[in-house]
Amino acid sequence: MTSEQELTKESISAFFMGLQDRICRSLEEADVAGNTLDKVPAQFREDAWERPGGGGGRSRTITNGAIIEKGGVGFSAVHGEATEATLRSLNLTEAADFYATGVSIVLHPHSPMVPIIHMNVRYFEMSTGHCWFGGGIDLTPHYVVDDDARWFHQQIKTVCDQHDPSYYGKFKSWADDYFYIPHRQETRGIGGIFFDYLKPTGAVHKADLFAFVQDMGNAFAPIYTHFMRQNHALPFGEHEKTWQLLRRGRYVEFNLVWDRGTKFGLETNGRTESILMSMPPQANWTYDFRPEPGSREAQTLALLRKGIDWV
Amino acid sequence: MTSEQELTKESISAFFMGLQDRICRSLEEADVAGNTLDKVPAQFREDAWERPGGGGGRSRTITNGAIIEKGGVGFSAVHGEATEATLRSLNLTEAADFYATGVSIVLHPHSPMVPIIHMNVRYFEMSTGHCWFGGGIDLTPHYVVDDDARWFHQQIKTVCDQHDPSYYGKFKSWADDYFYIPHRQETRGIGGIFFDYLKPTGAVHKADLFAFVQDMGNAFAPIYTHFMRQNHALPFGEHEKTWQLLRRGRYVEFNLVWDRGTKFGLETNGRTESILMSMPPQANWTYDFRPEPGSREAQTLALLRKGIDWV
Repeated sequence: MTSEQELTKESISAFFMGLQDRICRSLEEADVAGNTLDKVPAQFREDAWERPGGGGGRSRTITNGAIIEKGGVGFSAVHGEATEATLRSLNLTEAADFYATGVSIVLHPHSPMVPIIHMNVRYFEMSTGHCWFGGGIDLTPHYVVDDDARWFHQQIKTVCDQHDPSYYGKFKSWADDYFYIPHRQETRGIGGIFFDYLKPTGAVHKADLFAFVQDMGNAFAPIYTHFMRQNHALPFGEHEKTWQLLRRGRYVEFNLVWDRGTKFGLETNGRTESILMSMPPQANWTYDFRPEPGSREAQTLALLRKGIDWV
Repeated sequence: MTSEQELTKESISAFFMGLQDRICRSLEEADVAGNTLDKVPAQFREDAWERPGGGGGRSRTITNGAIIEKGGVGFSAVHGEATEATLRSLNLTEAADFYATGVSIVLHPHSPMVPIIHMNVRYFEMSTGHCWFGGGIDLTPHYVVDDDARWFHQQIKTVCDQHDPSYYGKFKSWADDYFYIPHRQETRGIGGIFFDYLKPTGAVHKADLFAFVQDMGNAFAPIYTHFMRQNHALPFGEHEKTWQLLRRGRYVEFNLVWDRGTKFGLETNGRTESILMSMPPQANWTYDFRPEPGSREAQTLALLRKGIDWV
């Protein structure tokens, strides 16, 4: 474990940058393995950008891969003067600088049988010394399959349990509340975990929290490439594709109407293309669409609710 | 002109209900006229609904018409206890009831050569006697054509000028500001007019304001059916269709991130399907899409800005 002294914002940022590299490589390898005659495995394309106020990032996007239709794996490390809102939330009365770094991922597969996934891990530090970690990972299957949902939650719980036995329960509930679409009375998917303001305390060192965030970040590629390998060749037709496009519409609704990160970014003049890497390649809306009672689509809707214990 | 005494909320609501009928009929007639071999002209389908707190509405939707791919023409007349926010905005300290009625329209055509259109006309009244009109109409061409943009603004200006020579200038600027997507630094389309809190004063009677709103509402069908007739048979290909789907993505971004009516509705437990009648049938996103310099798409982007004098 890194000693407290060495755990600088630069070293945390360096981990995130390496994480982006390793995740992109794993995803490309899994995408190649899903190659079929009519598709060409795509590679991530990088856009490096600078933030006028300080810092910058590397947005990596994939388009029309063999399995992934559209996705983004973003790294950023930005700094500058903290906003009034941030200062207020920390009860600070004088100007201070912030530093924020992290990795953000959303992947939309071609196949409705492969789930959409999202992960974010981040670190925030103020020049006043305040610092905390945040993040989350959640899965949005177009069709909820019990075994897959259980497996996903079990993977995450295993990582959580290695660090604190209370993490999974707390962060799973937080994800249920966060990844929720009030105007649809649906969760975005089967949830996962969400956590924020994870701060060092007397008993828990910054290095412990960082170790948890590292393990979570490192778990992403094995988890998602598992679903890529297992599900990409499952058969589907027009019916399933139609449903997928409507579910992507809900994904758009969540991200644009409710996701605090997206809203904050768009309202504070963030880099729009990097923030909206999460948008699907295509989303559809049909007025008042209702699946047939008893259909697999209706079964999925019935499972898009808070409080389901998957493990 | 209706005398002040007879101008009740019920009579205003009755006008809006009739307006919905007449607009739907005109759109159906124009859609039939656009019939081609591969499409069947569709009729509006009605969903009548009641609001738990009081009142209700009639949502009329059209799907896969000959010219209109997806659209909604909604009427509502709802009432109940005013929210805290409404009371505060009127400096009211005691509970009061509100009554709100209006017509809302968004139409998405199949063809990228036919513009998207939106109109809203509404009336709001409090049990305390406060009352006002609001509304707007704006056009979102996938390709901005100078002559069409000028014609559209001229039609609206003509209606405005018949009521108050200051209306068009004021309400056109308001539309430029309202129908704006800050995170894209683009207007949604070529604008039109937007107005709110139009209240009776000593010199301007409620009946005068209502007459303006009536004329605006009545102008909708002639304006849009003009574009349906004129543009539906213009040739287009995959290239134009791709652009249309990306522009619809921007329409979604505006409505879900910035449109105050949509946000208010979704955050206050409004009827989701009626609020989201404005969503396109399909919208696409491509990471960092940039049209070729000098292309018609680039020319359109250059015209999506505030302050253009079209008349």
